[in-house]
Amino acid sequence: MTKLSFIRADGPSAPPLYEQLYQAISGQIAAGRIAPGEKMPGKRSLAASLGVSVNTVDAAYQQLAAEGWLKAQPRSGFYAMQYDQPLRKAPPARSQAEKVPPPVSFRFDLSTGAVDTGFFPFHSWGRIQRDLLYNQPDLLARGHPQGDPELRATIADYLLTYRGVDCTPDQLVVGAGVEYLLGLLGRLLGGAEAALEDPGYARPRIILQNSGIRCVPVPVDEQGLIPQQLSASGASIVYVTPSHQFPTGAVMPVGRRAELLRWAVEKPGRVIIEDDYDSEFRFRMKPLPSLQGMAGQNGRVIYLATFSRSLAPSIRIAYMVLPHWLMRVFKATFGSYSSTVSRFEQQTLRVFLQDGHYLRHLARSRSRYQARMQQLTAALDRAFGPGRLTFFGQHTGLHLLLRLKDGPGEEAMVRLARAAGVRLSGLSEYAMGAAAIPDSTVVIGYGGLSNQQIEPLALTLHQAWCSEAAADDCVPKALQTAPE
Amino acid sequence: MTKLSFIRADGPSAPPLYEQLYQAISGQIAAGRIAPGEKMPGKRSLAASLGVSVNTVDAAYQQLAAEGWLKAQPRSGFYAMQYDQPLRKAPPARSQAEKVPPPVSFRFDLSTGAVDTGFFPFHSWGRIQRDLLYNQPDLLARGHPQGDPELRATIADYLLTYRGVDCTPDQLVVGAGVEYLLGLLGRLLGGAEAALEDPGYARPRIILQNSGIRCVPVPVDEQGLIPQQLSASGASIVYVTPSHQFPTGAVMPVGRRAELLRWAVEKPGRVIIEDDYDSEFRFRMKPLPSLQGMAGQNGRVIYLATFSRSLAPSIRIAYMVLPHWLMRVFKATFGSYSSTVSRFEQQTLRVFLQDGHYLRHLARSRSRYQARMQQLTAALDRAFGPGRLTFFGQHTGLHLLLRLKDGPGEEAMVRLARAAGVRLSGLSEYAMGAAAIPDSTVVIGYGGLSNQQIEPLALTLHQAWCSEAAADDCVPKALQTAPE
Repeated sequence: MTKLSFIRADGPSAPPLYEQLYQAISGQIAAGRIAPGEKMPGKRSLAASLGVSVNTVDAAYQQLAAEGWLKAQPRSGFYAMQYDQPLRKAPPARSQAEKVPPPVSFRFDLSTGAVDTGFFPFHSWGRIQRDLLYNQPDLLARGHPQGDPELRATIADYLLTYRGVDCTPDQLVVGAGVEYLLGLLGRLLGGAEAALEDPGYARPRIILQNSGIRCVPVPVDEQGLIPQQLSASGASIVYVTPSHQFPTGAVMPVGRRAELLRWAVEKPGRVIIEDDYDSEFRFRMKPLPSLQGMAGQNGRVIYLATFSRSLAPSIRIAYMVLPHWLMRVFKATFGSYSSTVSRFEQQTLRVFLQDGHYLRHLARSRSRYQARMQQLTAALDRAFGPGRLTFFGQHTGLHLLLRLKDGPGEEAMVRLARAAGVRLSGLSEYAMGAAAIPDSTVVIGYGGLSNQQIEPLALTLHQAWCSEAAADDCVPKALQTAPE
Repeated sequence: MTKLSFIRADGPSAPPLYEQLYQAISGQIAAGRIAPGEKMPGKRSLAASLGVSVNTVDAAYQQLAAEGWLKAQPRSGFYAMQYDQPLRKAPPARSQAEKVPPPVSFRFDLSTGAVDTGFFPFHSWGRIQRDLLYNQPDLLARGHPQGDPELRATIADYLLTYRGVDCTPDQLVVGAGVEYLLGLLGRLLGGAEAALEDPGYARPRIILQNSGIRCVPVPVDEQGLIPQQLSASGASIVYVTPSHQFPTGAVMPVGRRAELLRWAVEKPGRVIIEDDYDSEFRFRMKPLPSLQGMAGQNGRVIYLATFSRSLAPSIRIAYMVLPHWLMRVFKATFGSYSSTVSRFEQQTLRVFLQDGHYLRHLARSRSRYQARMQQLTAALDRAFGPGRLTFFGQHTGLHLLLRLKDGPGEEAMVRLARAAGVRLSGLSEYAMGAAAIPDSTVVIGYGGLSNQQIEPLALTLHQAWCSEAAADDCVPKALQTAPE
């Protein structure tokens, strides 16, 4: 008959007795101090010996039996079961929480992902969210796999009016970021081969490749992706950013858009993925209507866009518009998936759109970004002097290309800038091997730049780039004309 | 020389003049009313004839040239470009917003997905969210791909204490729902073959199959998945719900857990996906420690869990714990992906966990659900009379199995219940073909049931099931003892 060691814990924070007993017995079985097959003490005798109630012992024994520590023999009692040590001897030793290494901090961050979160409309967003939380308890229920129908209807209206996108709410899929949606597309279009812009955005390539799609680069010129080269590539999918090619900033003219659409229908199974990247931030004019609108509800274009960039990167709400023929496949494949976006944020966004907050927010941001861009290019021209710098793609989006004449070359420019505390990338970092990359060209994102930083940034870059190469012939105007 | 038709719009809401002019000219080129190659009027003459400033015309011309409608000939002027009609003639006719069909409404919803959103702690959740929104603007910046480190550290502590899960925050990946995370896993483990519980949950199979993983069913008994059958299946991945097998409700005893862990190490490349489904709702005792904890930080177990079920289905926050060896692969594959969860909700959850709200919420919900379960089974027993009904898996989770003796059989039970306004599923609806399904057994989820519904539900079910089959020998006690 088993000898049980049991020290009873008391006090308010102590677990219930039956649980203490359960822990003690299972622990001794696991430790091998109670051998398999050993008979356990009878309930009454154990209760008496421990000074606990019979019910306490019974509850513990039932639990131990239910979990396989003990076996109940009718009209006999409880016996310890065979317990095979799992693979690990020692109990889990808690490892130190690994620190995530802090990112290298730069004095100036010109990375293209940055946006000015200072523009975020805290007040209206917070008020809407609060109202919804307290007045819409039904928002706790499971939502529609494609996203809340009201939000989709609102987005569809916005898209028709401002982007010339022609779709029904049923063609919209709301998801937690462009990457997530692109991952779904990758599986929908699986097996095919995709053409990507070169130079271009690396992430779509990674995501498509992760879903088993082969990617081929197709060069871009000042009008964006070159259709002739696309036809030559043999790809059946093309991923394009016509509103603002990343990173060159090229805006695809209507003529080329039509060429692209004709490519899509020349052969069956061809699809255009239109990432409407940065179309919100077109400074001089309304953006061109989308490719999707030109192709129509059941054309060969998938339209992809996000609110994360225009609102805040931490708000993960993106969406895509699928043509009807593909929507049917989507529903068959992903129809049972839950939406990936919290319904509170979906509905907050819906109200934010419906009440006009979003358009006001965009207009405000647009003018601020434009002013910043103009201030930046002016400051750089002053610092480097006339004719030294050329800018490209500065009329859309939150980044531009800067080319330096008679400079040390791209590689050195990036290295020297980083050494001087300026984080930026060279254009060739976005090359995929198919296109010739002009030298001495860097990509400057000014989304995260403050107005106060602009002047010192310009001088820092000039200092960094002109102290090494041809330092003599580029004394900046700013210094020439500086007061004694 | 082109004849331009231009009707100028005025008033506060009118677009700027240069934009009106842009629209007019591009529209007439698109419509073919301005032929390709035609010379456009000079800026000055056009400005004079339209009564607008030269700058207005210049802005419009520049824009039209930038977009490819016009071509600028040096020292000559602007010429209309060839514009090839895109594929669609008519302008986008706005289609009617398709209504999402309203779900068939039942008087009683016994589906297993339902939870009682009335338990949701609006007050504390809302307060935390508001505080964060106003005091943490840095939460607008892009977050860590695996989820905010502070949240992961908090979850790791919770997991060690309450689930015996042994991991560092760096092993955690936070994502927008178990389905999303399982999709990532599917791509990580791609090519392999996965064993799923039969009867079991359909969605994991769909998701794994969507990511190209072949799925084979393995039968479960009253102790959960049967290891011998798993070895025979030839699969290298197994998806299990040991805390509360869905739908049978079986809890896997420690002995079998150890068997499963031994299976995983018998051959290289084997992996266990442990979905800790419903472990929060164990009524009689603490849940068994996780398989992951038995296998250790670098074992063969992937641990998967969600907050959507314990908080609210509309809040999409789930997480997984990857062993170190797999975490390295994950980072190489998905390291550049953005997190799919809004950082505001991530941080709200973190504070909610750290301040003890979550544990209090769980304890409250657990006791309420247990009381409801007991009330339900008692009411059903009263309605059907003694010995008619057997319940299974009622001590964990938010659903149970009900077996009816001398009933009309499962298919009729489901049909008759639905006809009587009760939404429930038959056990065989979860069958995958490998296991024998006991007859006359239905799955009853009571998560969405209100206490007031329980009595009428019991009588409705009895009425539905006993009026057809063997109506005589099952007059419910409740009615027998009813007062005159």
